[in-house]
Amino acid sequence: MSSVVPHLTTALNGPLLQLESHLLARQTDVEAWLREQWLQTPAPFYASVDLRNAGFKLAPVDTNLFPAGFNNLNPAFMPLCIQAAQAAVERVCPRARRILIIAENHTRNLFYLESLETLRGIFEQAGLDARIASLRDDITDAMEVTLLSGKTCHLAPLERKGNRVAIGDFSPCLVLLNNDLSAGKPAILEDIEQELVPPLKAGWSTRKKSDHFTHYTDVANAFAEKLDIDPWLVSPMTLQCGEVDFMARSGTECLARNVETMLNAVQKKYDQYGIDRQPFAVVKADSGTYGMGIMTVKSVEEITNLNRKQRNKMASAKEGLVVDNVLIQEGVYTFETLGEDQAVAEPVIYMMDHFVVGGFYRVHTGRTFDENLNAPGMHFEPLAFAQSCIEPNKADKPDAEPNRFYAYGVIARLALLAAARELA
Amino acid sequence: MSSVVPHLTTALNGPLLQLESHLLARQTDVEAWLREQWLQTPAPFYASVDLRNAGFKLAPVDTNLFPAGFNNLNPAFMPLCIQAAQAAVERVCPRARRILIIAENHTRNLFYLESLETLRGIFEQAGLDARIASLRDDITDAMEVTLLSGKTCHLAPLERKGNRVAIGDFSPCLVLLNNDLSAGKPAILEDIEQELVPPLKAGWSTRKKSDHFTHYTDVANAFAEKLDIDPWLVSPMTLQCGEVDFMARSGTECLARNVETMLNAVQKKYDQYGIDRQPFAVVKADSGTYGMGIMTVKSVEEITNLNRKQRNKMASAKEGLVVDNVLIQEGVYTFETLGEDQAVAEPVIYMMDHFVVGGFYRVHTGRTFDENLNAPGMHFEPLAFAQSCIEPNKADKPDAEPNRFYAYGVIARLALLAAARELA
Repeated sequence: MSSVVPHLTTALNGPLLQLESHLLARQTDVEAWLREQWLQTPAPFYASVDLRNAGFKLAPVDTNLFPAGFNNLNPAFMPLCIQAAQAAVERVCPRARRILIIAENHTRNLFYLESLETLRGIFEQAGLDARIASLRDDITDAMEVTLLSGKTCHLAPLERKGNRVAIGDFSPCLVLLNNDLSAGKPAILEDIEQELVPPLKAGWSTRKKSDHFTHYTDVANAFAEKLDIDPWLVSPMTLQCGEVDFMARSGTECLARNVETMLNAVQKKYDQYGIDRQPFAVVKADSGTYGMGIMTVKSVEEITNLNRKQRNKMASAKEGLVVDNVLIQEGVYTFETLGEDQAVAEPVIYMMDHFVVGGFYRVHTGRTFDENLNAPGMHFEPLAFAQSCIEPNKADKPDAEPNRFYAYGVIARLALLAAARELA
Repeated sequence: MSSVVPHLTTALNGPLLQLESHLLARQTDVEAWLREQWLQTPAPFYASVDLRNAGFKLAPVDTNLFPAGFNNLNPAFMPLCIQAAQAAVERVCPRARRILIIAENHTRNLFYLESLETLRGIFEQAGLDARIASLRDDITDAMEVTLLSGKTCHLAPLERKGNRVAIGDFSPCLVLLNNDLSAGKPAILEDIEQELVPPLKAGWSTRKKSDHFTHYTDVANAFAEKLDIDPWLVSPMTLQCGEVDFMARSGTECLARNVETMLNAVQKKYDQYGIDRQPFAVVKADSGTYGMGIMTVKSVEEITNLNRKQRNKMASAKEGLVVDNVLIQEGVYTFETLGEDQAVAEPVIYMMDHFVVGGFYRVHTGRTFDENLNAPGMHFEPLAFAQSCIEPNKADKPDAEPNRFYAYGVIARLALLAAARELA
């Protein structure tokens, strides 16, 4: 992983430059408004937000309440994570001494384990005894995995002991979910007396993307009104269809109609801002993650002419969830590119409590700027942000790196606030 | 200012290595204990603590509740300051949008103004409108000072408007004292309706070093008991004499008796740990700062044979305070030295709320290891810490830099806790 300063080229950046200038000029209003929001709705314990930066628009496309990828953050900013982790623990469980991280089930993935171990290390450096447990049935004994970094990741099976969970005699005060619960709420975690964050209802077995984006739209509208901007500059338009069955071909009419509505609405906005690009829409399963059940469409015909393979792909999300409710979202171009071969770069922002602690770019060499960049099996090179997201510099250009990173942190916190309202 | 990694040599480091190892091994206990303390007694808004590292012992010698020197911190760790400043503001005044910093009166000192402007910038980056006001009678109009860094520091006279203070139409929610009030509580700040931090009673017109060290002794004893260490390893022994008048030569008997008691007590500790050094004591005025009214003594004769110049020096503290109560404190050697010419280096640790945000070494080329390093007119070169104080590394040696800096941060927080109890 390199922490070289990324040179990003954006094609159409008129409105975004205006947005960045505006966020800088109104920074006191931005921060005071956000502080007010956190007093009303406390932030989730942690989160990561995928952003897309189209130059003319900057918007979140995914908010992960069980973030992985901590290993991709710039080691120079680990102190920020450690300090924010202390603040986060103090808020939810100030007397905690032990924290147990519940791992995702894909424990064969060395990159994921590297993230888990980085996360565990953050809590250890923050002064807690931190360990990692697995929910997998096939992990029955404590195990060690040697990571690519040379570190070792220790995993142990989670045990239920009365109203508590533990691993062996390690009985934590605080249980931190890093498993998105796509397969449902695990019985072993129901009604435990320990503090469990985020709550079980934050898992994908309960959570719906449509709820998130409904809240996001409200947040973006309120923020835009406060800041006197067009909310479209910071939010993707979203429509939805219920009861879609791709295999049985039912619900396709709703989908086609909404895709057409969306493409027209986006075209209208492009016309308003003089943007010479083809609108596209993203069709997503309402639950689930990892880019399963997601497709990009540029015309209604792509929906009406779906082949069997595409139907199959859309009908299955992670761990066998069946798609029914479907989101039709405005596609946001990623016009940030890196290097001579114009690799597409997508920023991912990390937060602990309401503090922005860092971020990195997913740099994709084999993808184009209108594709989903978080698809299964996708290869990306992480490029850690060279600077923090909390040091805006009013004396510098609005699109200078500290200011661009600051803008990322602001928009990511809007998504975090939407998630907070979802869980409230 | 350089941020080169300092290579520090300590002569006698047996017990300190043990202390550093112990703090590392018991880090969870250290942090859990401190978190518990902050729940009982909230930390002051900000502070800096001067430490002395004798190799065999690590102890605070001065706790400043109106810290200057923010310009000496490593710019790489400004994000930590910004994040902690956000947390500090949220705790005392979550709806604050404007903060007014009340400057020290020595506004001709360009280094001090550089610190003020750095501090103002931290709050600005944290998202508050931040400005600086002066209490000086001779500043009647807003003024600008060009700093050595090229930045500009804006100062304006503080105005009282009813129950509020302001500068012009800038009426802040939060008033931050960076003036130690040696000359007394200014009437203009009495009974204002705005949040004033630290409170007026934290000024040197009220505060007594003896109170601080009485609380520090209690804190160090409780901490040492929790951690199973000798409290002497982290605290200077302190005695005091009331009613000392250096000019009238009254109270000198008490001083001589206590100096003798102190030197004997230190010798006993040195014998216990096999330390082959000459004990010394530091005699300090109970109020006041900037190293005024401080002398170092190695024998009782130095007290009984004080000459007129020494008496004069001890009788006057900053801004004409008359010394009466006097502290006799164990002298703690500074055995951290830097470079070929063995310049003495003294760590100074900075905190916002209860977060350790950074530090630097005062590097003195013309002073010896048993002298007071914060005397008036003293020249020092600041050497910013190359690393944060919150990233201990258990896999590294106990005296590796991250671990030494972590130990500094722990001891500095003990002094911060003593200050919190002083103000409670």
